[in-house]
Amino acid sequence: MAFQIPRGTQDILPSESSKWQYVEQIARELCRRYNYKEIRTPIFEHTELFLRGVGDTTDIVQKEMYTFTDRGGRSITLRPEGTAAVVRSFVENKMYGDPNQPVKLYYLGPMFRYERPQSGRFRQFVQFGVEAIGSNDPAIDAEVIALAMDLYRSLGLKKIKLVINSLGDISSRKAHREALIAHFKGRIHEFCEDCQVRLENNPLRILDCKKDREHELMKTAPSILDYLNEESRAYFEQVKSYLNKLGIPFEVDPRLVRGLDYYNHTAFEIMSEAEGFGAITTLCGGGRYNGLVQEIGGPETPGVGFALSIERLLAALAAEGIALPIEEGIDCYVVALGEEAKKEAVPLVYALRNEGISVEKDYQDRKVKAQFKAADRLQAKYVIIVGEDELARNVANVKNMQTGEQVEVALSELTTYMKKVCKGEY
Amino acid sequence: MAFQIPRGTQDILPSESSKWQYVEQIARELCRRYNYKEIRTPIFEHTELFLRGVGDTTDIVQKEMYTFTDRGGRSITLRPEGTAAVVRSFVENKMYGDPNQPVKLYYLGPMFRYERPQSGRFRQFVQFGVEAIGSNDPAIDAEVIALAMDLYRSLGLKKIKLVINSLGDISSRKAHREALIAHFKGRIHEFCEDCQVRLENNPLRILDCKKDREHELMKTAPSILDYLNEESRAYFEQVKSYLNKLGIPFEVDPRLVRGLDYYNHTAFEIMSEAEGFGAITTLCGGGRYNGLVQEIGGPETPGVGFALSIERLLAALAAEGIALPIEEGIDCYVVALGEEAKKEAVPLVYALRNEGISVEKDYQDRKVKAQFKAADRLQAKYVIIVGEDELARNVANVKNMQTGEQVEVALSELTTYMKKVCKGEY
Repeated sequence: MAFQIPRGTQDILPSESSKWQYVEQIARELCRRYNYKEIRTPIFEHTELFLRGVGDTTDIVQKEMYTFTDRGGRSITLRPEGTAAVVRSFVENKMYGDPNQPVKLYYLGPMFRYERPQSGRFRQFVQFGVEAIGSNDPAIDAEVIALAMDLYRSLGLKKIKLVINSLGDISSRKAHREALIAHFKGRIHEFCEDCQVRLENNPLRILDCKKDREHELMKTAPSILDYLNEESRAYFEQVKSYLNKLGIPFEVDPRLVRGLDYYNHTAFEIMSEAEGFGAITTLCGGGRYNGLVQEIGGPETPGVGFALSIERLLAALAAEGIALPIEEGIDCYVVALGEEAKKEAVPLVYALRNEGISVEKDYQDRKVKAQFKAADRLQAKYVIIVGEDELARNVANVKNMQTGEQVEVALSELTTYMKKVCKGEY
Repeated sequence: MAFQIPRGTQDILPSESSKWQYVEQIARELCRRYNYKEIRTPIFEHTELFLRGVGDTTDIVQKEMYTFTDRGGRSITLRPEGTAAVVRSFVENKMYGDPNQPVKLYYLGPMFRYERPQSGRFRQFVQFGVEAIGSNDPAIDAEVIALAMDLYRSLGLKKIKLVINSLGDISSRKAHREALIAHFKGRIHEFCEDCQVRLENNPLRILDCKKDREHELMKTAPSILDYLNEESRAYFEQVKSYLNKLGIPFEVDPRLVRGLDYYNHTAFEIMSEAEGFGAITTLCGGGRYNGLVQEIGGPETPGVGFALSIERLLAALAAEGIALPIEEGIDCYVVALGEEAKKEAVPLVYALRNEGISVEKDYQDRKVKAQFKAADRLQAKYVIIVGEDELARNVANVKNMQTGEQVEVALSELTTYMKKVCKGEY
């Protein structure tokens, strides 16, 4: 019987996994520099964590979640995003009491949404995200944005665009909301059904409706930026000023909105502008969520963060034709001639590996010629040849596969010699 | 409303996550040396993959699986172990046609079993495992064992024990099976209900029954080693001979069995012998599974591998009192005095991070003294002090926190200077 991978998921095969490792290693290194520490929350959470306050007005609606009942009768959901679980852990572990504030966390792992699979959209996808919880300083908004931009730029992406906006504080949002309702109310019947619901629930979301994008009222809709109060305006100015100081170019787009009530002030997205990248150009989304910690049961605590998809990042690299500097070849392949040499090759390979050298040998009883071919396929930099004759004289031949040069080395000197040639160590 | 983590799962908090990163990095480095490449399969699979041929005679019984129906009506299961999915991917992606045989793969990620949570047992746990698929060479059995032992030893574990056994080939297993039935049949009513079922289904599993461990028939039960045919015996001798050549000590335990039919020849476990480690001492289990690829729909292909739990590994390190060599402190903390300096600190921090230095600053409007305290808590090696006065003169003060020494450095020289002192770079 043959089995298939579940629809909308993918295997990351050895030919691809080194790219993932490379990108993740860069992300971890940036977090080290920025002093964000890793947190790992479970793959699933109690469903209520993701359902709190969520109506039909959010992106991650209930019907997109992998929700099931466990054997103990609890409703469990595979996490659709990372922030809720990180904040749950922040509250449950009382991190608000940590003297190091803000608490700066990052996560890296799979998320799950039951969506119609399409190009660039998977039901399981990997997100990298950071959360800085506990500070109201606009400098930390700029830091979070800078970290995301650093990741893309350090991987070589050039065609990326940062778009920012401010959603203001609660009173600014309220004033804007009322203006939106007044603007759309008289002609809301011309809009889609979703938008008709949104008018009362969350009029802000009308602005990013994909169906009604071309309606003339969209172009004249009141901008949140005109409704920011003094404090919110000053906050936004500071964020922009920091971005300018860091030399990070950005555009302001007042239509960049986030539907959930706990979002406020800074919102941002990073998009790919590479040709042929596809319809979904957003690589990363983030912003400030000063209401979220309280909503999840903690004390009133400000927060800011972003999440980005590794799949999209790799797609953006591909769209810009960027090859990551990944070393695929092995250091050394041991070719053994004859039964005795075949046996002796095993501890030899082991000794070389113990010195940090990547080594392969034959396990298929291949003839010498086929062993050399295997060494070529594995892009071995060196081949060590061990035969009965060499063994009798306690030597091996080492061939540099790039130059073709071959030297005889005493077995007792072999690991030292190989360390020297492979790793530049003496 | 406060939310709790699901029972039997854990958050890996920043204080712990560096240990995980360290261990995983060592595992990845060993795989590089041994030429195993990473494969990442989805978190869930079609349930049938895990149910194939599984009766009540296996460890991972259906009732321990996280099984649910997705919105498309398919039965989906969170993977309880890694091998089945790796082999599914091997078959689905026709890796048996790859010229590089055996295909050497590793995986590292969460697995799920709905068990009663207890010390050292989690419902979500992380497994590291390797699979070498496509070779029948006893040297690859030894290689797989050596890789697992290398991981434990390179982390500093001393109190570990390798136990090996051979289950023989199909005909050896059959002969042994008949001997076992004959041995237990007459007095099977003295055994537990599970064992009574096992007598016909899988008498081998009676041998590792925990309830009937002390029954006198257990001690006199026929050993598989007495039923190995010539070929199986020779295979086992070669595996042992290679382990001896590699200097890896082991014990042979004929009671080490694996219940599933597709297991044959080599079986091994690695245990912790550290005092107070707890009841479950097994750290790693592995062996040869020459029947599995075919069972999953591929051509007849031999395979061998192991799986080990990172949670258990960390528990073994704790039991032996081993501290991993993890660098927790940051390179540098920037203390800013006054509004202007606070603003200028942001691009300064950014520039330092761009040079690979880990840097933190204050985002809480702390006074100078509190900023120094924060630097201490973060174990900063250096503190850079920027005040109005220093800014006016285009300099900063750099304090070495270990020696207390303080030097004035021109702002234009600062990143170069910090690279020199933090990273030994000129």
